[in-house]
Amino acid sequence: MTELLPNYAAGRWQTGSGPGTSLLDPVLGTELVRVDSTGLNLPEAFELAREQGGQALRKLTYRERAAMLSAVVKLLQSHRDAYYEIATANSGTVKNDSAVDIDGGIFTLGTYAKLGESLGDRCYLLDGEAARLGKDPLFQSQHVLVPTRGVALFINAFNFPSWGLWEKAAPALLSGVPVIIKPATSTAWLTQRMVRDVVDAGILPAGALSVICGSSVGLMDQLQAFDVVSFTGSAETAAVIRSHPAVAQRSVRVNMEADSVNSAWLLPDMSTDSQAFELLVKEVVREMTVKSGQKCTAIRRVLVPQAHYQAAAQAISARLAKVAVGNPRNESVRMGSLVSRAQLVAVKDGLAYLKAQATVLHDGASVPLVDADSAIACCVGPTLLGVQDADGADRIHDTEVFGPVRLIRRGQGSLVASIYGEDPANLATAALELADSHGRVHVISPDVAALHTGHGNVMPQSLHGGPGRAGGGEELGGLRAINFYHRRSAVQASTSVLSQLAS
Amino acid sequence: MTELLPNYAAGRWQTGSGPGTSLLDPVLGTELVRVDSTGLNLPEAFELAREQGGQALRKLTYRERAAMLSAVVKLLQSHRDAYYEIATANSGTVKNDSAVDIDGGIFTLGTYAKLGESLGDRCYLLDGEAARLGKDPLFQSQHVLVPTRGVALFINAFNFPSWGLWEKAAPALLSGVPVIIKPATSTAWLTQRMVRDVVDAGILPAGALSVICGSSVGLMDQLQAFDVVSFTGSAETAAVIRSHPAVAQRSVRVNMEADSVNSAWLLPDMSTDSQAFELLVKEVVREMTVKSGQKCTAIRRVLVPQAHYQAAAQAISARLAKVAVGNPRNESVRMGSLVSRAQLVAVKDGLAYLKAQATVLHDGASVPLVDADSAIACCVGPTLLGVQDADGADRIHDTEVFGPVRLIRRGQGSLVASIYGEDPANLATAALELADSHGRVHVISPDVAALHTGHGNVMPQSLHGGPGRAGGGEELGGLRAINFYHRRSAVQASTSVLSQLAS
Repeated sequence: MTELLPNYAAGRWQTGSGPGTSLLDPVLGTELVRVDSTGLNLPEAFELAREQGGQALRKLTYRERAAMLSAVVKLLQSHRDAYYEIATANSGTVKNDSAVDIDGGIFTLGTYAKLGESLGDRCYLLDGEAARLGKDPLFQSQHVLVPTRGVALFINAFNFPSWGLWEKAAPALLSGVPVIIKPATSTAWLTQRMVRDVVDAGILPAGALSVICGSSVGLMDQLQAFDVVSFTGSAETAAVIRSHPAVAQRSVRVNMEADSVNSAWLLPDMSTDSQAFELLVKEVVREMTVKSGQKCTAIRRVLVPQAHYQAAAQAISARLAKVAVGNPRNESVRMGSLVSRAQLVAVKDGLAYLKAQATVLHDGASVPLVDADSAIACCVGPTLLGVQDADGADRIHDTEVFGPVRLIRRGQGSLVASIYGEDPANLATAALELADSHGRVHVISPDVAALHTGHGNVMPQSLHGGPGRAGGGEELGGLRAINFYHRRSAVQASTSVLSQLAS
Repeated sequence: MTELLPNYAAGRWQTGSGPGTSLLDPVLGTELVRVDSTGLNLPEAFELAREQGGQALRKLTYRERAAMLSAVVKLLQSHRDAYYEIATANSGTVKNDSAVDIDGGIFTLGTYAKLGESLGDRCYLLDGEAARLGKDPLFQSQHVLVPTRGVALFINAFNFPSWGLWEKAAPALLSGVPVIIKPATSTAWLTQRMVRDVVDAGILPAGALSVICGSSVGLMDQLQAFDVVSFTGSAETAAVIRSHPAVAQRSVRVNMEADSVNSAWLLPDMSTDSQAFELLVKEVVREMTVKSGQKCTAIRRVLVPQAHYQAAAQAISARLAKVAVGNPRNESVRMGSLVSRAQLVAVKDGLAYLKAQATVLHDGASVPLVDADSAIACCVGPTLLGVQDADGADRIHDTEVFGPVRLIRRGQGSLVASIYGEDPANLATAALELADSHGRVHVISPDVAALHTGHGNVMPQSLHGGPGRAGGGEELGGLRAINFYHRRSAVQASTSVLSQLAS
């Protein structure tokens, strides 16, 4: 039997009382470790986090909490090798893809450490300026932001066991709100190990960070009015969480990131020999292959002018043909494995569903695997599908420029769209048109070819989230992220009282 | 048969095809008008608002939309007498209480007209400064706020048919988002009349403002991913709305205002002959009687130091004894009627429920009615209940200052708490302690005795909403209100593109 990873709850390490669920190597098929949360005293775990963890965190200033985040960054950096090993084994990712998760998480944490430092030695924040409530200036309204007196529950997705933890925990801990993380079971090991290292180092106060691996049953039931929950995963689970009594009846604040059919759009004034065309091809291939496409922000739809359909198909396919797929331990491999057999089945089913309405331009199913047994390894090559009549007769009713906007909006809200073109005014207009249905619009023009941060990379400075199908949530965006963990309140008082708040 | 009020939907006046629901005079018991929405083509109504209304509004700048709000203010002011008549007849309110609803609504609309003017001739807003995404300053992230491309559905409460409409419609219309208002049936007349006047005056573009009176069945089913819904009413209905597929599955953005057990708190260092004590007594009596207590922000709990219990009970009761209750048409009457028999029954049931755990200090049930038949009129006097052991043995575990905070927090989140005291530092500390569980903290000290805007009055400059039981929503708060009607998006681009956005 493999090791049964303990949970950290109620301030102590506790293994579940059940047999546990096995975590597998998706390339070799071997069993790695087991996780289980059977029999945990959840009310105790949440109560300790809420009371002891919350009180200890709220006593610290933003600057002190930021210093803790810096200490966590240093600690995690010192264990990077171990994290890469776990990622290779449990997520089947090549080194570059593991970096997106591991170093991306540490970078995000570091960014919040810096941002938090700028908030200074305070325990709450002023929100805007005081406003007069009448002609006499003596009685005014000053909005404040204070940490919510509850716990932050994170129910995370399988694709980012590190980044998904830290991009949420950084703003929560900086805000003074204790965290309970429930990682997706299939890749829970890395999350558990990182929390273990942080807990063992004694950087955070007791109750500030807990990890529960295995089933999520009963977690939502623990949530009270001032708690918050942040979820990343499927639209189905998102709907279940939103309908849970904690949310529907007790107004527990929710952040959601669900499905997102992200787009890349080549503006109509671009030719096939423009640099923008080249940039689009390169970015699409990168997005299709990084983390084997298991990225919530990955490009799912590519919109090019009708006249460039064949050229785009050929250029993208030619690059995809050079991508080696297989065992991430082989250095020639660029695209590793999917995280599990369940995901492999889901990808194959999804492709079959889409193929009924599309032409296969590049078939990933026929790609031979490097150093991997196709009967065991959960690997699949990148597949490019083509559609020439994207909107039937509807399309002719739109102008040329906004036809694509309407098609992109048919995604019903996405995390990110990227736009490829050259004229700044056209690019700005296109970006504004997409802004209402996307949490982020990534504009790639030749002048930033070597500088831009990538369609799919989530930068902590920018909002991550999207309306509608994408879940309606907001994460990151620099210090905007801490709003979720704060309560806004208008203090209406004499200026003699308000002057005490400013100090 | 009384008049059947038409709905304004899909750009035309349409009466329902059913017999309708009668709206009654709660004092005289007479039938006034009828409302009905049976047979309306709701998909058509929402589609026209979303497409035609939304497009027309979004083409205007904030300044142009603010000018429309100013025109609506002027128009409503010219019809004030008619609105007061409807309020007296349908809500049973005395003139001062009708003013809170009618003039309060117009004032709020006027405030947003002024605030909107300050946003200038733009069609979208920049959110913060651009942030570098790397060492090279050429590629940056600029957050923008753009109007959501959907409709705003308001499902409103019976107590504020005017203010409830305008405090929501002002920021929505200013943001460029069309409005469909569904007023509470029992007092729908005033809302319908105001919309009728605005529509007839042709101030707003077609589809920008619709009113549907009667049943709310089917309204939520119309909502799509980029629509928003704002609800004020009971916690039960709030839970139904939150669990609706539009919200749970399509991420329709929701704002909720539900139950709120608001508090008034006399700080422990105040004596019974302090001015703060007097101010508390006065404010409590005002809050208990204005709109017969039918105000979501009204004081429901009064917390005074144990030693002042009898003095506070006597002082409040003595003032309550002077309050004349009955027909709002009689000028001696200070407290009119509840809006309906259903409310009268609910109040009596609620009192019976509370009386089981409390002492009756002033009994409203025995107050004789002025100019009203107690068998017909839905009038009831103010009732003060007393509890000496508010928290059992728990209380002794808290320090003196934070004992009341803990008791107040047991309301599980409220719209507003007021604090009465004299020392600015004590008042500021107390305000911050309550900020996490209240959308507004109203601080009354002697220096602002003549200036403060009242515990229960919602000022457009300050946030209105509260966490937990209060629904978790945010309204008003000056320009903060328009965030609900905008989508935030991070545009990552070359500074040459971003400079186009700033212009």
